[in-house]
Amino acid sequence: MDAPDVAALEERLVGGDRRALARLLTLVEDGRGDVQADVVARLHPRTGGARLVGITGSPGVGKSSVTSALVTALRAVGRRVAVLAVDPSSPLTGGALLGDRIRMQVHHRDPDVFVRSMAARGHLGGLAAAVPAAVLVLDAAGFDDIILETVGVGQSEVEVAAMADTTLVVMAPGLGDGVQAAKAGILEVADVLVVNKADQPGAGRLEAELRGMLELGHAVAPPPSDDAGPTVSWMPPILRTVAVRGEGVDALRDTLDAHVAALDAAAGPGRALVRARRWITEIAAGRLRDVLAGDDGPLPARLEELARAVADRRVDPATAADRLLAGLG
Amino acid sequence: MDAPDVAALEERLVGGDRRALARLLTLVEDGRGDVQADVVARLHPRTGGARLVGITGSPGVGKSSVTSALVTALRAVGRRVAVLAVDPSSPLTGGALLGDRIRMQVHHRDPDVFVRSMAARGHLGGLAAAVPAAVLVLDAAGFDDIILETVGVGQSEVEVAAMADTTLVVMAPGLGDGVQAAKAGILEVADVLVVNKADQPGAGRLEAELRGMLELGHAVAPPPSDDAGPTVSWMPPILRTVAVRGEGVDALRDTLDAHVAALDAAAGPGRALVRARRWITEIAAGRLRDVLAGDDGPLPARLEELARAVADRRVDPATAADRLLAGLG
Repeated sequence: MDAPDVAALEERLVGGDRRALARLLTLVEDGRGDVQADVVARLHPRTGGARLVGITGSPGVGKSSVTSALVTALRAVGRRVAVLAVDPSSPLTGGALLGDRIRMQVHHRDPDVFVRSMAARGHLGGLAAAVPAAVLVLDAAGFDDIILETVGVGQSEVEVAAMADTTLVVMAPGLGDGVQAAKAGILEVADVLVVNKADQPGAGRLEAELRGMLELGHAVAPPPSDDAGPTVSWMPPILRTVAVRGEGVDALRDTLDAHVAALDAAAGPGRALVRARRWITEIAAGRLRDVLAGDDGPLPARLEELARAVADRRVDPATAADRLLAGLG
Repeated sequence: MDAPDVAALEERLVGGDRRALARLLTLVEDGRGDVQADVVARLHPRTGGARLVGITGSPGVGKSSVTSALVTALRAVGRRVAVLAVDPSSPLTGGALLGDRIRMQVHHRDPDVFVRSMAARGHLGGLAAAVPAAVLVLDAAGFDDIILETVGVGQSEVEVAAMADTTLVVMAPGLGDGVQAAKAGILEVADVLVVNKADQPGAGRLEAELRGMLELGHAVAPPPSDDAGPTVSWMPPILRTVAVRGEGVDALRDTLDAHVAALDAAAGPGRALVRARRWITEIAAGRLRDVLAGDDGPLPARLEELARAVADRRVDPATAADRLLAGLG
């Protein structure tokens, strides 16, 4: 394959060309590492305008309905919106969970809404590097809001959602509430909690449980060691929605505004710096795995040598990992 | 806190002391990095005897029932079994999903069965480092089989399960089969597929779907780029179980034997080498995140400097990640 003409694609992207946008997203999703790096390096100066909203939650809570209703609410105030849906799906089956995506089709004819599904390609490393690159492409394309929706509640899905400025965690009554709420890491990353399907039995109890856990967490939990963000005065609010009827979604939109305002008003490093720190970390961790899985360069050879030593019990795996990282810093 | 006397604990561990085992597991789960490294370095020479079995699958498929029934089947042939259940649960709620664990209590009085739950502490890095260390402790304690059960089907849970010699993926009919099967990465890591609840409607159809996807994958899928394992002649079999009644579980136990025999008979690097390579990679990626999240040493300072450059749009995040990793290799 010839090297793609990223400069030409960039020009078309800035001119509002949808096909260039789709092509650039494919390049960062599928492309070789150097192509991805080229796209990121070129587009990065054009970015910074978009607000990034993460949405996560268990299957069945109505995440896609919340996303779709939120898109409607954002469009109503004139904002241009992109949705990046990250699926932990198989390359075998081609990625997107179509049932979920169909609900987004109401926005299909709106030129100021763009929806894209992105599948994990076998391991998290690739995804961790591809997601920030895709967000960057969408940012450069001039969207006001980028919604990063993840399917599933694994740690890595939660981490992807937490790369956003504001992270929504969606829950619903009747899905084994206590257990569901306990599936966390999730509460720790929530900036806003959404009790969807709030017209169904158990919504009040779920909200009360969540409130109890949040207050407990607020009182006793140490701040997450890997955040190092600004000290924001923000207790995650719990909002009720019935997303399929659009109920409560305008309030949700306004809460996003309030959260970003709180971030921007906070002392300490700004929102851009916090985001940059998280993104560099994610990309570096992903790239480390990629390099180690490859054949090129000194690092896979070093890994092979260390793995032999571990297999022969001359070195333990933790020491081996440290030696592998010893050249850093 | 004084430094724990790891040497004394090691001596008690080898003597079969359960409390020493529990204490060492707590140390590698909660302890400081240097304590974890000390435990791993001391115990590593005593390891290598255990077989490592990963079990993963969506909530509701009966993973814990399969695990419990498999423990019974392994005990019937005299093997000593440890179960490490990895939960992506919140530190706020204390970890284990108790409902699931209760099913394991049938083994509570058996001195040759040991069950331990381990929670993700806020981010994957910690877990990625703690799981291999815990497995190593259990290996040194002399268990013949270590079952690594993960709750949830996120990418990272799948990756944890895939650190095993043999990875079982458990499915069940009636849970949105197609979608469920598509929740993958999961098929790529499966060495053995288990259709549990095989007495329920739809089991035959689920098996047929899985068989179709496996054959498709076998025919067209490139080998996963991050495996680099031996060329094993092994097409993942699909087994039917009704785990709550113990049906099909003896066959499952025998299939584990067959898979490990196939691994050991394979050309190329041996099982110990493949495992070592995966473990070093996981630990190194986890440790990189830990170091970056910390305050100590030159790497967080370098990250801060790079994050400022990214926030000011002088450097893009991919280039920044590369510069961060530039000292490696």
